Order: sequence, then C-alpha cells, then structure tokens
Amino acid sequence: MKIAIQGIRGAFHEAAALKHFGDTIEIVECDTFKSLCDTLKSSIADKALMAIENSIAGSILGNYTLIHEYGFYVIGEVYLNIKMNLMTIPGVAISDISVVESHPIALQQCQEYIHKNLNATCKESNDTAESARNLSLSSDTSKAIIASKICSELYNLEIKQEGIETHKQNFTRFLILGREDDKSLGNNKASLRLQLGNEVGSLANVLVAFKENEVNLTKIQSIPIIGAPYEYDFHIDVEWADYDRYQSALAEVETKTRALSLLGEYKKSSFELNQ
Amino acid sequence: MKIAIQGIRGAFHEAAALKHFGDTIEIVECDTFKSLCDTLKSSIADKALMAIENSIAGSILGNYTLIHEYGFYVIGEVYLNIKMNLMTIPGVAISDISVVESHPIALQQCQEYIHKNLNATCKESNDTAESARNLSLSSDTSKAIIASKICSELYNLEIKQEGIETHKQNFTRFLILGREDDKSLGNNKASLRLQLGNEVGSLANVLVAFKENEVNLTKIQSIPIIGAPYEYDFHIDVEWADYDRYQSALAEVETKTRALSLLGEYKKSSFELNQ
Repeated sequence: MKIAIQGIRGAFHEAAALKHFGDTIEIVECDTFKSLCDTLKSSIADKALMAIENSIAGSILGNYTLIHEYGFYVIGEVYLNIKMNLMTIPGVAISDISVVESHPIALQQCQEYIHKNLNATCKESNDTAESARNLSLSSDTSKAIIASKICSELYNLEIKQEGIETHKQNFTRFLILGREDDKSLGNNKASLRLQLGNEVGSLANVLVAFKENEVNLTKIQSIPIIGAPYEYDFHIDVEWADYDRYQSALAEVETKTRALSLLGEYKKSSFELNQ
Repeated sequence: MKIAIQGIRGAFHEAAALKHFGDTIEIVECDTFKSLCDTLKSSIADKALMAIENSIAGSILGNYTLIHEYGFYVIGEVYLNIKMNLMTIPGVAISDISVVESHPIALQQCQEYIHKNLNATCKESNDTAESARNLSLSSDTSKAIIASKICSELYNLEIKQEGIETHKQNFTRFLILGREDDKSLGNNKASLRLQLGNEVGSLANVLVAFKENEVNLTKIQSIPIIGAPYEYDFHIDVEWADYDRYQSALAEVETKTRALSLLGEYKKSSFELNQ
C-alpha cells in the first residue's frame, strides 16, 4: 500500500505511518500539505497521513481547510509521542559539535538540552529529516541534527542522545485520509465540522444533545470567521459506546446548526508515551 | 509608555501595538515570546503585546502556557488584519526581482501572487521585519521582501504591490499583557482557563451555566493533556452585557470544574478588514 506523507523519509509523518500501518507500506514523499492532497487525489497514493494537531503547538487549522476542499474522508487517527534525538556522523564527539541544525520548532523544543550540554549555535532548516539527509550527504563532522529515531538508520547517523526535548508530553495527532470511495461508517469516533450562529447558548444546545445521548466530546475548537462576525465554525471530535445513540444525537444536532459536515467516522486510537 | 513586542521594529506586533496604543509609545524589541515575558516581568517594559491566534494558522498554545507560568494578566485585545506587501529598494523594477524573502508563513500566504507575477525563487527568513531591515542594509536590487506596510517607512523600501496575500480574511489576535498590579476587573469580555473531567457532558454543564446567564462564548479550544487522558483543559473567551450575571455564571461554573483560572477581564475589541 502506498502512503503519502508530508516531508521526506524519516520525517515524523513516516514514524506515524509505520505505527499505524506496519512496515510493509511504501512511502510517497510530498513537499507540502497541498501536494500531499494532490498525491492522494490523483491516486498516486492509496491513503495519506496528515498532522492535524500537536499538544504543544496546537491545531493546524489550514489542514482542516484542505480536507474540506479536497472532499477527503477521515478513516483513522494515530497519536505519536514526539521524541527528539541528537545525531551526528558516526564517531563524532559531542564536544566537537559547533552547529545544531533542525526545524525551528524542534530546535525550540530542545533549547534547554542544547544550552546545558553543547557549545553550539543553532541553524534552522525546513524539515528535521531533510537536515538528517543533508548531514549524511555532507559528512560534516562539526554538525549535529535533531530528528526522529528512524533517521539514524535511514541516513546512517549516530544517535548521541535520545529524547532531548524539554516537554516529554509532546505528541502529534495525525489523521488517515482516504478518497470518497474509502468512506465507511460506524466505529466509535467521528470528526465533525459545525457552523453555528453566535446567539447566546447555541453551542450549549448542541452539547446538551450530545450529552443526552451519552456521546462524549474529545476535542472542540472554534474558528473565528472574519467578515461574518456573528458566525463561528467549530471542529468537534466525539466518541460513543452506542452507535444508534450517536446517530440520534447527530440528527438532533443537525436541527440546531446552520451547517453540519461529517469529516469521517473511524476507530479511535490511544495515547502511549513511548513509541 | 514602553511596549514589549515579539520581533523587531516593523513586525506585525508593532502594527498591532500602534493600532491599540497610538503612536506615542516606545517599542521594546524581543527576540522570542519567552524574552517578551522576561522583559515585562523585569519592568523593562510597561506592557507587552503577544499574538495568541491567527484566523488561518490557529492558536499559539505555547503562549497561553507562558501567560500562565509568568502569572500575567490580560488587560486587552487587538485584532489586526494581516496585509502582506511586496517591497524592494526604491527604483527596482518587478521584472528585476529574482529572489523573494520573508517568513515561511508569509511566503506561503502569498504563493499565488508570486507564481503569477514574479520570476523569482523564495528564500525563508526568521521574521518579515528582519527581511526588510536586512534588505535595506544590503541594498540588493535583485531581491524583494514581504512585510507589513510600516516596514517601508522604517527601512526606506518601496512598496511594489500592496495586499498580495491569497486569503484576505487573514487576521491575528493579540493580547495586551500586564503584571499583576495591572489587574483590573469589570468591562465586557474575559479569558478563562478551565479544567474538566472527561465525563459525558461535563462541558455541556458549564456552557449551560453561561447560557442561562446570557454570557456568550466567543472562543473555545480544548487542549489534550497527555498522561491524563481523562482530563481536558479548555481556553474559553466569554462576553456579556450584564457584569453581575457574568459573575453569577462564573460562580456556578466554578462548582462544575476541577480548576478555573481567570486570565483577565477586559474591553472587547472589534474586527475591521482594513487597518
């Protein structure tokens, strides 16, 4: 099966794909989230994996827009505990490192370790895995990079220190996307997009409909719509034990919203702190 | 009055500060959001201005964490319509531009214009205003930068095209932060942080308390807490017409939550599409 990811081999997207699908998949590298969507749409890949939120950085709202615009269906989710690892060309000593290169967010999340343990300046790159690949090609012995563990095997780098991120509770949630013919209903979790008026309590009415049917919210995020200051879009994820009661709740919610889109129904995934 | 901003003079943070405070302020430049907080804490600045969410990119969750950790108080908000402008050294023709430099998000938001109108490669930088300042210092006539309008005056650059962003409904919301002695209660809007259990309907109960007191939600965002999979934090903004009823709602909400923090009560600001 061909899985489209954002980034190159070794990116955290690949780690998430391996966690979800196992290691028999073929990875299709995509530069941007938009090209990821084009790759899925044109059937170059069978499925796509797309980061949607990070516990430290927040949601990637633009990706919700892409899912909507391309008419994709959410067929699953995967949570990945983000572990940052310091790597060099094999044999390089930590004291020889004068530059550390990685994506700005990765560098930021490892500032504490860098300041305490290295005498090095930071250099920003577009992508953690790209830094790993470029280091491997350059054979630069004064440089270290920060990337996912799988980069050490892919690009023959030596891990000098595992898990150098400051906040250990750092995870990214990825959605598994399919084309319309992958649509399947059922399971125990759904992602919804709702449009509500800004009347006092419009959201409360919706949540009460879920509550009365024992449907639980696991995520809610409002999106301000400028130009329409009295309207709001919400991204909501819900879970249920009884599919029929979820269906009843959905029917009731539909009467209370201006617009309701189902992005997908899928099997919920669990958090684990060690990948 | 000294106002700390993230970035250098000409950054969108400065445009927001001028919009809120007028042009008699003195800007204190801060490299990072953390140094912005240190600058306010140590009284080098009187107030600080901090981006908290963008209509396209979403919330900056890490900034909520900083406000909480430093114990700051939210004393106001300002919405800025983000307009991207193409600038060069005065006299350079659009056909002479071979490189466009800016922050990666600014470049991304102007991709359509760049592809249609320029024969140039893109170069990423840390900051829109930094690109403007560096272009001014280098006098490079083959380069254009993308930045806020005020950069053209500050760094003597010529605006070749205004408003080149693809999505016109692009705004950033900034919070005005003060130290604890700036705390003032009242007004018509508040930012709250709530911790709830994941029991079915716990959020619904809270929202009903607001609804019954005619307190309106303008923002809600859940923050997944890994390691505590049955607990959620929420950032909620509310508005009211009657302060006493808001106080009643808050008292009731407190009985329904595990923890409730008031980040600040302040005067609500309005959106305007043209700055």
